[in-house]
Amino acid sequence: MLKGNALIAQSGGPTAVINSSVCGAIQTWLANEDRPGTIYAAVSGIKGFFEEDLIDLAEQPAENIAGLRWTPGAGLFSCRYKVSEDEYARLVEICKKYDIRYFFYNGGNDSMDTCHKMSLAAEKMGYEMRVIGIPKTVDNDLPITDHCPGYASAAKYLAATVMETGIDLSSVSTKNKVCIIEAMGRNAGWLTAAAALAKRTPDEAPHLIYLPEVPFDTEKFLADVQAVYDRLGHCFVVASEGIVDADGNYIAADGKTDAFGHVQLSGAGETLKNLVEERLGLKARCNTLGTAQRSAAHFASKTDADEAYATGKKAVELAWEGKTGLMVTLDRQPGEEYVCTLGEAPLSAVANVEKKVPVEWINAEGNYVTDEFIAYARPLIEGEVEVPMKNGLPDYVKIDMTKGRVQK
Amino acid sequence: MLKGNALIAQSGGPTAVINSSVCGAIQTWLANEDRPGTIYAAVSGIKGFFEEDLIDLAEQPAENIAGLRWTPGAGLFSCRYKVSEDEYARLVEICKKYDIRYFFYNGGNDSMDTCHKMSLAAEKMGYEMRVIGIPKTVDNDLPITDHCPGYASAAKYLAATVMETGIDLSSVSTKNKVCIIEAMGRNAGWLTAAAALAKRTPDEAPHLIYLPEVPFDTEKFLADVQAVYDRLGHCFVVASEGIVDADGNYIAADGKTDAFGHVQLSGAGETLKNLVEERLGLKARCNTLGTAQRSAAHFASKTDADEAYATGKKAVELAWEGKTGLMVTLDRQPGEEYVCTLGEAPLSAVANVEKKVPVEWINAEGNYVTDEFIAYARPLIEGEVEVPMKNGLPDYVKIDMTKGRVQK
Repeated sequence: MLKGNALIAQSGGPTAVINSSVCGAIQTWLANEDRPGTIYAAVSGIKGFFEEDLIDLAEQPAENIAGLRWTPGAGLFSCRYKVSEDEYARLVEICKKYDIRYFFYNGGNDSMDTCHKMSLAAEKMGYEMRVIGIPKTVDNDLPITDHCPGYASAAKYLAATVMETGIDLSSVSTKNKVCIIEAMGRNAGWLTAAAALAKRTPDEAPHLIYLPEVPFDTEKFLADVQAVYDRLGHCFVVASEGIVDADGNYIAADGKTDAFGHVQLSGAGETLKNLVEERLGLKARCNTLGTAQRSAAHFASKTDADEAYATGKKAVELAWEGKTGLMVTLDRQPGEEYVCTLGEAPLSAVANVEKKVPVEWINAEGNYVTDEFIAYARPLIEGEVEVPMKNGLPDYVKIDMTKGRVQK
Repeated sequence: MLKGNALIAQSGGPTAVINSSVCGAIQTWLANEDRPGTIYAAVSGIKGFFEEDLIDLAEQPAENIAGLRWTPGAGLFSCRYKVSEDEYARLVEICKKYDIRYFFYNGGNDSMDTCHKMSLAAEKMGYEMRVIGIPKTVDNDLPITDHCPGYASAAKYLAATVMETGIDLSSVSTKNKVCIIEAMGRNAGWLTAAAALAKRTPDEAPHLIYLPEVPFDTEKFLADVQAVYDRLGHCFVVASEGIVDADGNYIAADGKTDAFGHVQLSGAGETLKNLVEERLGLKARCNTLGTAQRSAAHFASKTDADEAYATGKKAVELAWEGKTGLMVTLDRQPGEEYVCTLGEAPLSAVANVEKKVPVEWINAEGNYVTDEFIAYARPLIEGEVEVPMKNGLPDYVKIDMTKGRVQK
């Protein structure tokens, strides 16, 4: 086995189970008495790595590592930072300095691109290193893998919230006749679509679902809402934050962009609410769950949390087998029963590819999803994580950043 | 015991445990073999009662009644309807028609007023009837009772969400530096204040809490946010939807009013978000949880759900003892350990009185709560309700409105 240390880091927006992946990787690494070195965390992702802000995880209390399995947020801290092409050589130099031969990066699309370029840079510089990506994103938009760790927990929380607020809406004859929930997932409608899991009978919420995969038509939307309202006396809408019009313009763009040049979104739900009130004269309410969707670990999917853990474990195992330039994948096996095994995909095939909801899983009217989507998503939200409770609230842990702090 | 039937109805916005109260009342009524008559539900509250839209709950499958104990929304349907003075006689006439001698009304401030006037109208008309109010409101603003069923579950969900999204905010170095959560509770800051339960260590979220009990000063708010940001690099704010300026104007009023003439609120959180972005130049995010706060039964407080059940049971018992014109109260006993017993308060003393957060439980700066508030609220959120799950989501029930439907 290649001698040397490991580095693990997190990137981008957290999920309810991102730390479960990190827990799987760290526990697997430390449980091996023949491990080739120690395992460092880069504090605050790749940005922290540039600053050589490292902690030795072998010096972390075991209960802190164990608690990552049910703790939301980025336990090692995360960042959004686009590494420029000429910075990769510097990253490899830092690896050399700390004898880092194993590089585990836990993130989404942009992170897999970073990971891929890191792998190429090391190769080009003749520095032997194993680079493995550990997928995570509530957006569920990484290719090749059947689904992404983090997605199902966000889906479960969103579906439960749609079910609960849907019951609330239908059970009170108030002025609020239309309820809109805005769901996360920039250009991919996976999370928004998961709201459909809440519907048990035809008249229950949600009634209308709008994904970014289908151009949003304001007049059609208003007609859809009016039709549901005429039938039921109320209407429950779930719309993606990333819905776009026929010209590809975001319905809710506020003119700003992030570090990766992505357009920043705010207020698709509020925009629809205003449309309903002004054009249909119906009082509407918009629930913007925001970051609660990606951090509601109190209601995480056990299937998701366990798979997240397994992907972290697998990353370490692949690296020890001598593999590199890969992302761990979740491979669903054919058949009625849900069986998912672990696999691998080349980072080159993953980097910057966005997997969207197939159009055949969206109904012809473009305002709901088909049973194929339900069959895909349903097994992923099964089971609940048992989060230890303290004083009536989840007992989440915190990594002690003073322990094992590396001197530059 | 006075012979005759009972009526139970729900009013106003639901809570996560409003149906637990109804379950307590119905199960207590039906378990008594010597009960003086049957128990009807008015479908959609007092509005349904006017329309004589009744179902006989004795004909409802027992599992539907039992499932109310963990189901959110208004299980019997609810309404917001202000009964005018000259309509009470008509309500009493309907009671006479169906031999209703027991009237149980499950609601908040406005409902207790309705209940009180109903009691007076029956008395004036010489119609012997037992009228008992069963308290519910996430706003926690009913007087005399130590707290209101429904409050603690909303508090628990909000605090967990603040904890989770707070960890999320502090663990990612992105452009979003300020996170704002808007909490329910019109003129009373109880629910907003409960966000403080999330803080375990001084630097954790929430950092700033703004209640409607303290006049909101924009310049002070901006200085508060800047100070926290300067210290921590981020800032987590929880603000009530009902914050008002020094002149008593809602920060977020949109110029509309509801059936009771109350000003409709929307967007206090969005207003603060815009202030932070425009005045401080910090990117902010607003999570508007909306009705999720009052319907998140998947994370309800067991203490709350059990107390809600007990108040429903107590209402029936008080009525059978011959009492009337009362609301059931929760009476906290002195001492370190949390012990709460059931009591009663005259509806005349409850109707239309709004209990606010005592000013001595708010800090001198007007931007947080004191330890006295924490000591008050902490025991209320203890324990979790075990909700049966199906397909990865809560298995909520629905009352079958076709069963036992009364012919007019």
